[in-house]
Amino acid sequence: YGKDEVWDKIPKEVQQEIIDKKLKFYVIKAYDLAESLGLGTRINTIMQTAFFAISNIMETKKAVEAIKTAINKTYGKKGERIVKINCDAVDKALESIEEVELPSKATSTISIPPAVPAHAPDFVQRVTAKIIEGKGDDLPVSVFPCDGTWPVATSQYEKRNIALHIPQWKENVCIQCGQCNIVCPHGVIRMKIYDEKLLDKAPKTFKHTKAKGKDLQGKAFTIQIAPEDCTGCGVCVHTCPALEKDEKNQSTGKKAINMTPQIEIREQEKKNWEFFLSLPDLPVEQLPFPVNTIKGSQLLRPLFEFSGACAGCGETAYVRLMTQLFGDRALVANATGCSSIYGGNLPTTPYCVRTDGKGPVWTNSLFEDNAEIGFGMRLGIEQIKTKAQLIADDLAKTALKNNSSLINEILTADQSTHEGIETQRLKVKQLKTLLKSLSSEDRANELLDIADYLIKKSIWIVGGDGWAYDIGYGGLDHVLAAGKNVNVLVLDTGVYSNTGGQMSKATPMGAIAKFAAAGKPLPKKDLAMLAMTYGNIYVARIAIGVNPMQTIKAFLEAEKYDGPSIIIAYTHCIAHGINMTEALDQQKKAVASGDWILLRYNPELLKEKKNPLQLDSKAPSIPLEEYIYNENRFKALKTIDPERASSLLKSAQEEVNRRFKVYEHMSKMDYTQT
Amino acid sequence: YGKDEVWDKIPKEVQQEIIDKKLKFYVIKAYDLAESLGLGTRINTIMQTAFFAISNIMETKKAVEAIKTAINKTYGKKGERIVKINCDAVDKALESIEEVELPSKATSTISIPPAVPAHAPDFVQRVTAKIIEGKGDDLPVSVFPCDGTWPVATSQYEKRNIALHIPQWKENVCIQCGQCNIVCPHGVIRMKIYDEKLLDKAPKTFKHTKAKGKDLQGKAFTIQIAPEDCTGCGVCVHTCPALEKDEKNQSTGKKAINMTPQIEIREQEKKNWEFFLSLPDLPVEQLPFPVNTIKGSQLLRPLFEFSGACAGCGETAYVRLMTQLFGDRALVANATGCSSIYGGNLPTTPYCVRTDGKGPVWTNSLFEDNAEIGFGMRLGIEQIKTKAQLIADDLAKTALKNNSSLINEILTADQSTHEGIETQRLKVKQLKTLLKSLSSEDRANELLDIADYLIKKSIWIVGGDGWAYDIGYGGLDHVLAAGKNVNVLVLDTGVYSNTGGQMSKATPMGAIAKFAAAGKPLPKKDLAMLAMTYGNIYVARIAIGVNPMQTIKAFLEAEKYDGPSIIIAYTHCIAHGINMTEALDQQKKAVASGDWILLRYNPELLKEKKNPLQLDSKAPSIPLEEYIYNENRFKALKTIDPERASSLLKSAQEEVNRRFKVYEHMSKMDYTQT
Repeated sequence: YGKDEVWDKIPKEVQQEIIDKKLKFYVIKAYDLAESLGLGTRINTIMQTAFFAISNIMETKKAVEAIKTAINKTYGKKGERIVKINCDAVDKALESIEEVELPSKATSTISIPPAVPAHAPDFVQRVTAKIIEGKGDDLPVSVFPCDGTWPVATSQYEKRNIALHIPQWKENVCIQCGQCNIVCPHGVIRMKIYDEKLLDKAPKTFKHTKAKGKDLQGKAFTIQIAPEDCTGCGVCVHTCPALEKDEKNQSTGKKAINMTPQIEIREQEKKNWEFFLSLPDLPVEQLPFPVNTIKGSQLLRPLFEFSGACAGCGETAYVRLMTQLFGDRALVANATGCSSIYGGNLPTTPYCVRTDGKGPVWTNSLFEDNAEIGFGMRLGIEQIKTKAQLIADDLAKTALKNNSSLINEILTADQSTHEGIETQRLKVKQLKTLLKSLSSEDRANELLDIADYLIKKSIWIVGGDGWAYDIGYGGLDHVLAAGKNVNVLVLDTGVYSNTGGQMSKATPMGAIAKFAAAGKPLPKKDLAMLAMTYGNIYVARIAIGVNPMQTIKAFLEAEKYDGPSIIIAYTHCIAHGINMTEALDQQKKAVASGDWILLRYNPELLKEKKNPLQLDSKAPSIPLEEYIYNENRFKALKTIDPERASSLLKSAQEEVNRRFKVYEHMSKMDYTQT
Repeated sequence: YGKDEVWDKIPKEVQQEIIDKKLKFYVIKAYDLAESLGLGTRINTIMQTAFFAISNIMETKKAVEAIKTAINKTYGKKGERIVKINCDAVDKALESIEEVELPSKATSTISIPPAVPAHAPDFVQRVTAKIIEGKGDDLPVSVFPCDGTWPVATSQYEKRNIALHIPQWKENVCIQCGQCNIVCPHGVIRMKIYDEKLLDKAPKTFKHTKAKGKDLQGKAFTIQIAPEDCTGCGVCVHTCPALEKDEKNQSTGKKAINMTPQIEIREQEKKNWEFFLSLPDLPVEQLPFPVNTIKGSQLLRPLFEFSGACAGCGETAYVRLMTQLFGDRALVANATGCSSIYGGNLPTTPYCVRTDGKGPVWTNSLFEDNAEIGFGMRLGIEQIKTKAQLIADDLAKTALKNNSSLINEILTADQSTHEGIETQRLKVKQLKTLLKSLSSEDRANELLDIADYLIKKSIWIVGGDGWAYDIGYGGLDHVLAAGKNVNVLVLDTGVYSNTGGQMSKATPMGAIAKFAAAGKPLPKKDLAMLAMTYGNIYVARIAIGVNPMQTIKAFLEAEKYDGPSIIIAYTHCIAHGINMTEALDQQKKAVASGDWILLRYNPELLKEKKNPLQLDSKAPSIPLEEYIYNENRFKALKTIDPERASSLLKSAQEEVNRRFKVYEHMSKMDYTQT
């Protein structure tokens, strides 16, 4: 808002404080300015200039000179254009500051809203809200859980409203493919199929259409955005394949979802979102589409939502998908790194629960022992499960003789499918009811405590490449080699993202990173190939923006495999120096260049004398430079040292060619004679 | 010696002590007894029984019962035969103890010899000798080097005389192949070719023959054993391919070397050994055979000798060979494990020096950082070398303008061959003489200190599988991935040998080890394949007892390669439960079964579009069981749990088949199109 509108938009409490403190009050339309200069939503240069211009800490002229020198130093590597628009931003900022004339009284009709809504749980009210309000220091130690656990599913109560624009759905253009859902890094786009009758109570502006698909008569379909949780990254809109056409069948340039100013639709969409949440979630066994499809998987409720990851983060869509597929029975061991920060950041936590209260358990450990933590979870679970089985077996012969068939069904249950697991859950529930009736029996009480371990658990060991390729690799290798049923998810940005962009062994040749200021001279370590040398490890390399079906398949196969599994996920990152909205295009180029070969290596196939390695992408179809030079980390070297850049590009291209040929050769091996 | 002979064989000092203390004195011919029972040189059971029989600590009957119970417990896994012969040993021991009647006076003509010879260096006299005598506690702190270094080349002064039998050479049977030399684990068999004229001063019993080979007229050939340092393992005799024939051309059952009671030839061979040492060592550039042959390499003086490794150790021949080929300019970083214990055991150290005083530098570090230590050595050397080059270049333009051509030759020298390196040494020596004449110049003094770094150094990172596959693997991977010129030697016993036989990731499937009491259920980690995934790492898998030429080639290629190299060496071990004398037969079976595939992966070949992987052994020609069941660690499982043993054998055989096919397929890939 400009100087003439802004006053009335400020809460009364803030107005009063400004008046009481006799503050000078300035505004600048920084986002508009940044947008117009080509800076996107980056307003740091503008706000820095504005600060020096109004603060009188130093002479403005000198400050401007210093800022421009810093711009040259900071952005010089990224090319002249970036330097120029930042310098322009400085000059324009100086012109654009407006002082607001202060009235003598606070007259606003707006008040500061409470930090969390009234329906938030007790702990969130007492503790989380205080931390959100910046009053964490006032909390007594006694309010914190004494066993080190921390309540989850609380990110839903912190409405950050950080997006200027959010996507809006056009139900008549939508082809119901689910792509916007599966790529959403923030879990804010949701899709439901539900009984049309439920629309009776829908708010007026709630959008819906008829569900497309076999046997879906009488069902409605809605894509709903969580308006206050969206970060406005625009990945969904960029991905949407449906184009709107006008009456003359001409493209309008719009899609089935389009970016819209958030403030204009916030209030209506808040209500729509609440109504949407009240619609029933489909359990996996009732999905109208197979779980191994985009649409099927995206009808499952994410159990990871609204994390504090960067807008457009390349990691979080994988984490969300993992929780959709297995989250209700997952235990996550998370290495330190971005995924531990957004995964367990205070005050709120993004891992959440189904309507029935089931959701992932999550813990964070160090770089150097995270694989081991997940391994320990598996060993612990197996130990407790075995104990539960022994007691159950014993009781089936004694106190629960009359219910021995139920117990035997539980002990011999097939839990290889979602349906099997849900059936087991119901049976374990029955068993627990029986056990309660035997409460005088010590063994019954003991089993009651641990009966839930009779339901199959899913271990996920999650971390970035700094963990998996470097600091935690010794442990990761040890755990993978130990043969137990654990699943590893590597979020591979090819750089230590969270600590500021240091080189890891996953950093590609020719990229600039900290400790590789002249471009990394060595090729990326091939973690997939390393894991494949064992022969009994399930291995997948995936890129959700290129082949989401393959991504889903890899997750399902990895989890099903009764042994160690590792999934290595292409993960774009702000550290790459790319336009995050269009990041999935970069994923496609990575695969097309042959630098990121999609694959699945399934040891189960060895039993059938089949080649366990299947390549899910084709031979390189574009030169490497067409891929890498979209990223500042590579482009920068071209600017600083074009000769070295060219030599590294040549070597990197040779390495890409060699690796693809090796993979291709291995995928063609005949296993019938082994 | 029996009770009637023994008294006169004891040094006078000991006789006097026995008399003074009124000791009871018993003898037992434990070695003869052990030999006759089939226990080889294992006298522990016999001596334990003898101890209880004469000490009266407890009733002999009870002691015998307890010993037999312990035998059943300890050796039960190794089968009934082993239990029986140990129990027999107990009974026979009781019968064989003889009491020696003591005279009233010490009459021996023998005195206790000094701990080290009179010609040993000052430090050895003052410090090492005291520790050998068991008087280490009496040494003041001030005698120890204050910078943490420790004098090397001292194992030669500690004459342990532990062998009952040692090999003796038959010069007329010998075919001069050098095989006994290359397999000797203790560096006690040496070979020299020298001018016949030098024989003038030879002791009478010194053996020699005419040297065979082109252009060797006038040259004599000798194989000499170090009689007091030999452990009597017999590996050399078992390996010797030359069979003696009598006049009728019938085999006499003897070879070109044969085991002989040490005591009978000790004195004469001591003199022969001393004379042999006085004969000149051939420098590598004067070898009459190429260095990449057994004979050529074995004419080089080992710079690792008489270590405290077990008799017949499978590791030490590789270490010795490494010192023969590169020891005069090697820096060794040794991980904790057997190789660090025998490599730097006090009181004496086996790493030694050439006649000109040049030899390896050695340090020992932890499991978890040894690769990093070697990496740091490389970085340090490069740093100092660069500094030396800069100063030399500077001086060539200033104070040493008149000698600029010498300096330029040094700065541009080709050091890719042994000859090149020796030439460089001479030139650096000249440079140092010049620098001394400039001693007033600060820069000249600085260069004088570091000029030796202008000579090519060779980094060797050495350790066992517990280090390389397990605890140190994270660091090893990191160092290999860092692309620097370091050489890694993995002495792969497939078990934590030094700490008592715990399972490592190198332990083969089905073997019993600590933490794998029921046989390891998972296959051996394939470290060679892991390293090969990088593409820019030289990788070799070797077995000195199977293909010594390939072993030598691998060492030479690895060292020559200007990047990271790793050599994985098959290393038999007492922990395998084998007859150590015949251990090389077991190496052959390992290779024939396909369980240990010999290979070399040389990235240099990629430049020529050739497949970098060459298999140096053939497809499996014997079933796995023919190999593994020669080892107690596998056999034991057959006894304890035959069903599991059989199931693991089946899986292991499948895995051997699969791996060989994968290697074969990879070795056949066409690289011309990459």
